[in-house]
Amino acid sequence: MLTTQAIDRVVTAALAEDAPWGDVTSDAFIPDGATAAAELVAREGGILSGGDVFTRAMLAADPTTVTTLLLADGARFEPGDVLATVAGSARGVLLGERVALNLVQRMSGIATLTARYVDAVAGTRARIVDTRKTTPGLRALERHAVRCGGGGNHRFSLSDAVLAKDNHLAVLTASGISLTDAIVRARSRISHTTHLEVEVDRIDQIEPVLAGGVDTIMLDNFSLDELLEGVALVAGRALVEASGGVNLDSVRAIAETGVDIISVGALTHSVRALDLGLDLSVEA
Amino acid sequence: MLTTQAIDRVVTAALAEDAPWGDVTSDAFIPDGATAAAELVAREGGILSGGDVFTRAMLAADPTTVTTLLLADGARFEPGDVLATVAGSARGVLLGERVALNLVQRMSGIATLTARYVDAVAGTRARIVDTRKTTPGLRALERHAVRCGGGGNHRFSLSDAVLAKDNHLAVLTASGISLTDAIVRARSRISHTTHLEVEVDRIDQIEPVLAGGVDTIMLDNFSLDELLEGVALVAGRALVEASGGVNLDSVRAIAETGVDIISVGALTHSVRALDLGLDLSVEA
Amino acid sequence: MLTTQAIDRVVTAALAEDAPWGDVTSDAFIPDGATAAAELVAREGGILSGGDVFTRAMLAADPTTVTTLLLADGARFEPGDVLATVAGSARGVLLGERVALNLVQRMSGIATLTARYVDAVAGTRARIVDTRKTTPGLRALERHAVRCGGGGNHRFSLSDAVLAKDNHLAVLTASGISLTDAIVRARSRISHTTHLEVEVDRIDQIEPVLAGGVDTIMLDNFSLDELLEGVALVAGRALVEASGGVNLDSVRAIAETGVDIISVGALTHSVRALDLGLDLSVEA
Amino acid sequence: MLTTQAIDRVVTAALAEDAPWGDVTSDAFIPDGATAAAELVAREGGILSGGDVFTRAMLAADPTTVTTLLLADGARFEPGDVLATVAGSARGVLLGERVALNLVQRMSGIATLTARYVDAVAGTRARIVDTRKTTPGLRALERHAVRCGGGGNHRFSLSDAVLAKDNHLAVLTASGISLTDAIVRARSRISHTTHLEVEVDRIDQIEPVLAGGVDTIMLDNFSLDELLEGVALVAGRALVEASGGVNLDSVRAIAETGVDIISVGALTHSVRALDLGLDLSVEA
Amino acid sequence: MLTTQAIDRVVTAALAEDAPWGDVTSDAFIPDGATAAAELVAREGGILSGGDVFTRAMLAADPTTVTTLLLADGARFEPGDVLATVAGSARGVLLGERVALNLVQRMSGIATLTARYVDAVAGTRARIVDTRKTTPGLRALERHAVRCGGGGNHRFSLSDAVLAKDNHLAVLTASGISLTDAIVRARSRISHTTHLEVEVDRIDQIEPVLAGGVDTIMLDNFSLDELLEGVALVAGRALVEASGGVNLDSVRAIAETGVDIISVGALTHSVRALDLGLDLSVEA
Amino acid sequence: MLTTQAIDRVVTAALAEDAPWGDVTSDAFIPDGATAAAELVAREGGILSGGDVFTRAMLAADPTTVTTLLLADGARFEPGDVLATVAGSARGVLLGERVALNLVQRMSGIATLTARYVDAVAGTRARIVDTRKTTPGLRALERHAVRCGGGGNHRFSLSDAVLAKDNHLAVLTASGISLTDAIVRARSRISHTTHLEVEVDRIDQIEPVLAGGVDTIMLDNFSLDELLEGVALVAGRALVEASGGVNLDSVRAIAETGVDIISVGALTHSVRALDLGLDLSVEA
Repeated sequence: MLTTQAIDRVVTAALAEDAPWGDVTSDAFIPDGATAAAELVAREGGILSGGDVFTRAMLAADPTTVTTLLLADGARFEPGDVLATVAGSARGVLLGERVALNLVQRMSGIATLTARYVDAVAGTRARIVDTRKTTPGLRALERHAVRCGGGGNHRFSLSDAVLAKDNHLAVLTASGISLTDAIVRARSRISHTTHLEVEVDRIDQIEPVLAGGVDTIMLDNFSLDELLEGVALVAGRALVEASGGVNLDSVRAIAETGVDIISVGALTHSVRALDLGLDLSVEA
Repeated sequence: MLTTQAIDRVVTAALAEDAPWGDVTSDAFIPDGATAAAELVAREGGILSGGDVFTRAMLAADPTTVTTLLLADGARFEPGDVLATVAGSARGVLLGERVALNLVQRMSGIATLTARYVDAVAGTRARIVDTRKTTPGLRALERHAVRCGGGGNHRFSLSDAVLAKDNHLAVLTASGISLTDAIVRARSRISHTTHLEVEVDRIDQIEPVLAGGVDTIMLDNFSLDELLEGVALVAGRALVEASGGVNLDSVRAIAETGVDIISVGALTHSVRALDLGLDLSVEA
Repeated sequence: MLTTQAIDRVVTAALAEDAPWGDVTSDAFIPDGATAAAELVAREGGILSGGDVFTRAMLAADPTTVTTLLLADGARFEPGDVLATVAGSARGVLLGERVALNLVQRMSGIATLTARYVDAVAGTRARIVDTRKTTPGLRALERHAVRCGGGGNHRFSLSDAVLAKDNHLAVLTASGISLTDAIVRARSRISHTTHLEVEVDRIDQIEPVLAGGVDTIMLDNFSLDELLEGVALVAGRALVEASGGVNLDSVRAIAETGVDIISVGALTHSVRALDLGLDLSVEA
Repeated sequence: MLTTQAIDRVVTAALAEDAPWGDVTSDAFIPDGATAAAELVAREGGILSGGDVFTRAMLAADPTTVTTLLLADGARFEPGDVLATVAGSARGVLLGERVALNLVQRMSGIATLTARYVDAVAGTRARIVDTRKTTPGLRALERHAVRCGGGGNHRFSLSDAVLAKDNHLAVLTASGISLTDAIVRARSRISHTTHLEVEVDRIDQIEPVLAGGVDTIMLDNFSLDELLEGVALVAGRALVEASGGVNLDSVRAIAETGVDIISVGALTHSVRALDLGLDLSVEA
Repeated sequence: MLTTQAIDRVVTAALAEDAPWGDVTSDAFIPDGATAAAELVAREGGILSGGDVFTRAMLAADPTTVTTLLLADGARFEPGDVLATVAGSARGVLLGERVALNLVQRMSGIATLTARYVDAVAGTRARIVDTRKTTPGLRALERHAVRCGGGGNHRFSLSDAVLAKDNHLAVLTASGISLTDAIVRARSRISHTTHLEVEVDRIDQIEPVLAGGVDTIMLDNFSLDELLEGVALVAGRALVEASGGVNLDSVRAIAETGVDIISVGALTHSVRALDLGLDLSVEA
Repeated sequence: MLTTQAIDRVVTAALAEDAPWGDVTSDAFIPDGATAAAELVAREGGILSGGDVFTRAMLAADPTTVTTLLLADGARFEPGDVLATVAGSARGVLLGERVALNLVQRMSGIATLTARYVDAVAGTRARIVDTRKTTPGLRALERHAVRCGGGGNHRFSLSDAVLAKDNHLAVLTASGISLTDAIVRARSRISHTTHLEVEVDRIDQIEPVLAGGVDTIMLDNFSLDELLEGVALVAGRALVEASGGVNLDSVRAIAETGVDIISVGALTHSVRALDLGLDLSVEA
């Protein structure tokens, strides 16, 4: 669950961007005391994410606005479903509308796409997780959306888990240090709570990496056959993550190789906003 | 052109999000004095946007990093082209890599998609423009990307131009004020530099709106025939904007109705990050 | 209307400046439970601006303070009139007093001065507008104050409208590009919602500028005779703005030349705070 | 002297306000590589304040801009004098121009006005000082300007010195505590570095206030005769500050009563920006 | 008393640091509607400081949390005493717990230590005060804690009082200016509300410093005999501050030399958090 | 390693706190062009931490200051050793001195204390780690200091690892869910990179906790005998952390029970600043 503070940091900045000092259209057309009633309506089906974000955006626009969420985050809805209702001053609701929609549409888009991946691997042991390819500034919200869609999260940032790639390893092995030794040394330098993951590109790297002791081994851009072989080789000595070339067409087959984790950059790097609208009536 | 400050606000926040205090992987694997040389390489063709953003992200990660842009924003490139080179400390380049890529990939994705729309309407009078359906926090950057792709920008925010929709108009007309009078009154309330646009849903609203005096009239969700009729009716008395149902399949036909402006939410609300990668070699 | 956020950004920073950690005078002299009742009283006549700002400043000082506005922004008052009442903890009211007064006095000073200019041109077509010569950090509030006084706003910032001056034009014409072509090219580069204004210093520049197509033409430092001639020449093809040498003695004659817009830097660059006071009684 | 940080906080916020994302006029008219040379020229005589602020504003707009100050803060200049020169990219100089001017004009206006008050009391023991009636957000800069004009500063904020007025005193004396006892108690509660000043409205309050032990006694709205009597009564046991009804016509006579300090709200609450201009030439 | 804003600046940043986006433990183990009741209990005796800070931290974590303070800041308590109660959502209370404790424990540790120094000098004229050796970011809170313990505050920052040390004086006296003249000149440059203190290392510096006119003279690292001699020499012409080598063993003897002020860096630079705990019960 | 940004956030805020607008002592005593040379000298032996922080603080005070670090973070030094040299403007060095010292003294104090704990357990398998009992706002710096002292870090925040205590467990077990099931369910809800630790108070909780599958089991306030028994029982199935009642007297015996991790709140909650001084000479 997101903290209120984490939500408000995003919502406040977004509102300042979308209305630096006021709404000239409302000033020109909307009488002072006018009120508005609105419904957040699904124009297509999907999974809700961002109910609290929607609510806080409306409150940031006008502290007297009242939002009622009819569905919880993670719930599935059909086209035409009403997801929330809003009541407040017309100027307040019109001020908050775009920011609230932009966020809940994006988050629900991510949740809905995630759910498609999760459904695609149903029955396998594979968990669908996100990557660091998130929108700058929105990572916490986009991670929450992935969880709403049934997915899991990968490390949040560079500061909380190790993920060593070829470049990290190459510089040490070039100095004559073995891959295994490099990993052993890395473990001794990190917090006991820090997850240690190493990426490999070839089958023959697996054994030395495991010998160093890792929590997860990432098999990057492996073919299905290689994945199968890799999973067999690891044999439960670490979690196995498949990465690279994952899409809705390929994900099921990847999952069926027995990997534990499938990371999917597309969950967040190429989001389609879900089509949600605010049906609004204003009264003087 | 974006101000350095506008870029740095985004880049600094993104880096704080992606590395709150440090990079545990570099700490564990990269020797202190190691250097890196990197190339920003196109894995697919497109239009570049965000060169300065890429540069500032690398500088924010490490002030001694040197980035050389080989293409200017707005330039077209092919798969395999090298767009920029980076040299610096290995820790610095690895620290900035993800943030720099996340931004330049997103911006170039927007520019490239915009260019497809712009190309699709080539030879017509129509200009492709964006909407307020941008990523919260990134509007200035995404607007710049649209311009890089040859598109134009719609109003930046609620504070800088009027765009009156049915809800805005309904509340006044319900009080017995004519549409024309409502618009005349609105004009008297706004700055002489503020663009006044009104959205209509039906042909019969066009004449009263023009009678009020607007800079742009938006024909929302009009069929092609209705657009043709609308353009003829307006007859140059205002700019005509088409909106709603615009995609790469429909945009040419819409443009051929003679509208001046076609606004496309999809330019920014559903971005696919362009596939750009950082080919990096690290040396101890 | 100002957003609550735009007000709070100013008010919060002002309070942090005026009381970084506390009020040592209240700590030394005011008992803990003491309450205060106060009236915001006009020591001279004028136009109110900043009622909401006054209220938010008091709330920021102490969230339990209750402010009641007796006049709306834009209302005219006489010396001795009570504009608002405040009730709350003595410590809270004393904490907020100076910030609240500093802002409402400045804003009402601007509104009152603006109204004098507006009154001076009554019956002409001229609208009095502000400039970018505002107090750094307070532009949104000062713009609102100008509107409260019956004036209009010029462009808010460098980002929302074009205003080309001699320096902008000189560099292109020096390269052999005609003034007209330069303006045509500029229009093609800006948003359709962006107002395009060009400043001219001489009568003979008017025709080429109009040929380029501008929304407003600024006649800078023109004599009254030149203004008359300029207005006749423009003949409605663009708005005409008079600028330079405008003061309360000259503004009527300028307005009578038939210009549409008169911009007055003095509205905000040299403000006299209106004499408003807080009559306060504290009770233990 | 202002810290660089204190200047940059103001300058950065001002630039973000004046150009949230870019300068559309420069984008439309100024070629990319164009350079500018500029002179900061006095259109009227005065005292300079804000040279460093001007420099930092230009740097914030473009880090490659070079500003050379020809006069130091506090120096007197004549109409036509060149105060500083600027060289840099045309886009950078045009971007920083307005913010830099707005600040240096305001600060020099304050310094120049202060100097007139200081000159008016020359030869007396009185020091001219400012008040807390400063522009919210600009207090540090405006205080510096007062010093440039030869004036002194009063307390910076509510947190750094005690200034007890009638309301502060009334609540305690209403509880039966004597004025003297209230002040003695206050002294025991404050830091030994905290200046203790008490305001009195009547001659008969002077003795009990001095009995409590104060650093400064403020004689508020005293006639000249009362000031004379007050100064005699205090007889050096505390600094004497005159306050209320101070203007350029009255200040000399007030100073000649022998007071130590004269506080003048008008130094900052009603500033006239000094007429300084940037004479600029742009070259492609 | 601390302003709510000053508290909230610290509390908000602390919470963002301790829970950037959420509490994964609560997400994994605590059901959504679970409530918590908690008591803030003293595990050792001491002086309370930070009651309001504790309350605001809990509110920042969850705006619906209700904290009841059973003791006021400055009150003495015994091991086992309940200092406050908290009721709210389990997730909210668990989210705020660590930040609230970290702050109230540190502040109460400072208050308790201060009280030991204050008690040690009871009956003398000496006041125990803090220094600028505070925790960066927490100065206002730590100063408040010193006051809760019965101590006084020294200058808050470099901006609000003068404290000249040997380095400050050496540069002028090296230029041939006498110590006395340097101080006279300094006084003429500072605000009349600014306290002027000069540090001396030797008895023979006292007379020239007093001749310059100072508010406080600091006797740095003087032996007890030297302090006695110094106090006699000053003879009430300035406050006398003892500094250097002050600890709980030495402070009484120092106080008995007759100094007015004893500054103790250890009050804040080497704090032991007081042992307070939150006894918490959670209910589904 | 700390990012430059993470350091600058702390340093900038600290400087704004310690010198909101300027240094009145320097203004009064230090001539404009005076320069300073300084040495950071150890008054007692210890371990350095915060060299970069010291450097950035000096740079923030004055960008032209040059700091040369003579020791790296983590190096051991003796009383009298020079740790760094600084050269720059006298005003700049005096401005940065206190902030730079406050931070490097605190950090080196933490590193030095940590090293004592680490030395005390030398030869055992136990690693000394910190807790979340850090100074609000300084966690990243204090964690770095612990690492400089040879210690390890526990989880950084509530967002990056699970640490379930009795309260977390009680609410589920009260609903009839077994401890084992609760942990299994928790694992399914968290990221695969999230470390899962559970605290137990009694030996008989160990088996059900291990059955749930945890990465670390914390034995809280166990006696030495209980720790021995616990370690034997766990038998390598999870890391074993000892917590509670750890001090320099007890830590060796605790380590010898065979635990993997010993968490020590005292490393950061009760820091004694190391005695480092800046020996400074100023020249006009």
